[in-house]
Amino acid sequence: MKAFPEMVTAVRDCDLLSFLAECRELVDAELDRRIPAETIEPTRVHSAIRWSMFAGGKGLRPALLLATGQTFEAPVSLLLSSACALEMIHTYSLIHDDLPSMDDDDLRRGRSTCHVRFGEATAILAGDALQSLAFQTIAEDGQISNETRVHLITELARASGTPLGMVAGQARDLEAESREISGDDLEKIHRMKTGALIVAAARCGAIVAGVSRQELEVVSDYAGHLGLLFQITDDLLDVTASAEDLGKTPGKDAQSKKATYPALYGIDAARQRAAQVHQEACAMLEEIDRPTTLLRAMSDFIFQRSA
Amino acid sequence: MKAFPEMVTAVRDCDLLSFLAECRELVDAELDRRIPAETIEPTRVHSAIRWSMFAGGKGLRPALLLATGQTFEAPVSLLLSSACALEMIHTYSLIHDDLPSMDDDDLRRGRSTCHVRFGEATAILAGDALQSLAFQTIAEDGQISNETRVHLITELARASGTPLGMVAGQARDLEAESREISGDDLEKIHRMKTGALIVAAARCGAIVAGVSRQELEVVSDYAGHLGLLFQITDDLLDVTASAEDLGKTPGKDAQSKKATYPALYGIDAARQRAAQVHQEACAMLEEIDRPTTLLRAMSDFIFQRSA
Repeated sequence: MKAFPEMVTAVRDCDLLSFLAECRELVDAELDRRIPAETIEPTRVHSAIRWSMFAGGKGLRPALLLATGQTFEAPVSLLLSSACALEMIHTYSLIHDDLPSMDDDDLRRGRSTCHVRFGEATAILAGDALQSLAFQTIAEDGQISNETRVHLITELARASGTPLGMVAGQARDLEAESREISGDDLEKIHRMKTGALIVAAARCGAIVAGVSRQELEVVSDYAGHLGLLFQITDDLLDVTASAEDLGKTPGKDAQSKKATYPALYGIDAARQRAAQVHQEACAMLEEIDRPTTLLRAMSDFIFQRSA
Repeated sequence: MKAFPEMVTAVRDCDLLSFLAECRELVDAELDRRIPAETIEPTRVHSAIRWSMFAGGKGLRPALLLATGQTFEAPVSLLLSSACALEMIHTYSLIHDDLPSMDDDDLRRGRSTCHVRFGEATAILAGDALQSLAFQTIAEDGQISNETRVHLITELARASGTPLGMVAGQARDLEAESREISGDDLEKIHRMKTGALIVAAARCGAIVAGVSRQELEVVSDYAGHLGLLFQITDDLLDVTASAEDLGKTPGKDAQSKKATYPALYGIDAARQRAAQVHQEACAMLEEIDRPTTLLRAMSDFIFQRSA
């Protein structure tokens, strides 16, 4: 049995930045154990995976998984495999989305994107291998019951693929570049592209904790709002932040005529929408019969990053 | 309960071409149920998936899974989800391998490759979605115990990714284009690139049937030889067959200076090696205390296609 803490320390005093840092450390250490070393063949693919995986991202998705799991009293040791799997899926999607034929991005988290550094073929393979490894990581976690593992894998696979997951969102987003879309369309795209994996994060944490069906519904609604909030603030940051703050090329959205909240509604209205979604997310937490300070702080954090 | 036959008819009289056709029909019908229709958004991705999935491939991998499962008396109905998952992984790998930055192929199974027909971005997304759907398909099969589903997903994920699966093989194959490699290196690449998924096919069939650990070992050894045989005959066909017979551009290997058996040993020696591997595969079947006519016929079939 590994010596994981039963609970992430910062949960108790709800210092969100400490909580995020602690989660990142725990998850990174576990990812480091699960991902083949750079010295193992094929070294180029493993180097590419590690380049993109350990690039100093905030780790919001695994943190949300841990926060939700801990809210329902699941021990950290049982949450780490799905937290890693989620981060693997997220990172594979970034690697593939940055490719020249997709969003064509050279800069991500303050450094060269995977294909710029390692070439397109290796970047495609690194993403493909990460997706396999994500499902393998959950399947191989012998601390969790087979039933729960199957449940987690189903959640993650649905959230990743089509017709309602992340890949569907990315496909619709690319299609939307060539035409005018409505606010409803935009929200639908985001619900899949970013939202599906954020909802999966919260749900997986709750599933490991063994929550009731009703609690799982509330968690999903809360996380759905969190995902939307994340995308609105992401769009706002693309307009208002510098490359240095952002760690990626700003203004890309406008340049590629991407549908965004600021483009569709203007900056002020987008900010108001963010405030509304944040408030709704917090209101939902009142239905959970436990201390939800940490989940509220997650919503505060995402809301404030674009303020 | 669906009305699947308990056993594929051709198993009884061991007519391999009928068996392959029957498997293809069963698996295609199940794939058609599992893959979102072309009319479901994102339509372009679903069209691309179906374009590559229903392209008239022989379906050797799912057939091997069914043949192995049936050898150990597993009912067809329990074998179909992993057979579909395997074909999804195989097809996603073909879509990605054909991309311009990888093998750059325009023709596959007698028609345009996925990216030529639907564009690179859609081809990448179609492959990504197929991989998620493969794991989802097994995870959602309520007819199989949770324990077996976890086992099957672990097998498939390991066989697909790195450091020893299909993606590792493709990565090493691309690296090998730029340098001289030995016969041992070549065999190692093939064992991963083609072999891993063929071994997984046989193992998954045996796992669903609930075989002993010892039987699983024999099945793995047999399928390992089958995978190698498949690659040698594939290399031979690339040299000797016409585009019409092949359904893809012949001579691509030599053109791209790919390491192949004929290139390394010459055509005659490659044919001799194929005969030897075929014989070894059949010898292994004698260790199985059941009628193995069908598994022997699979090896005959693969051997003879390049004769």
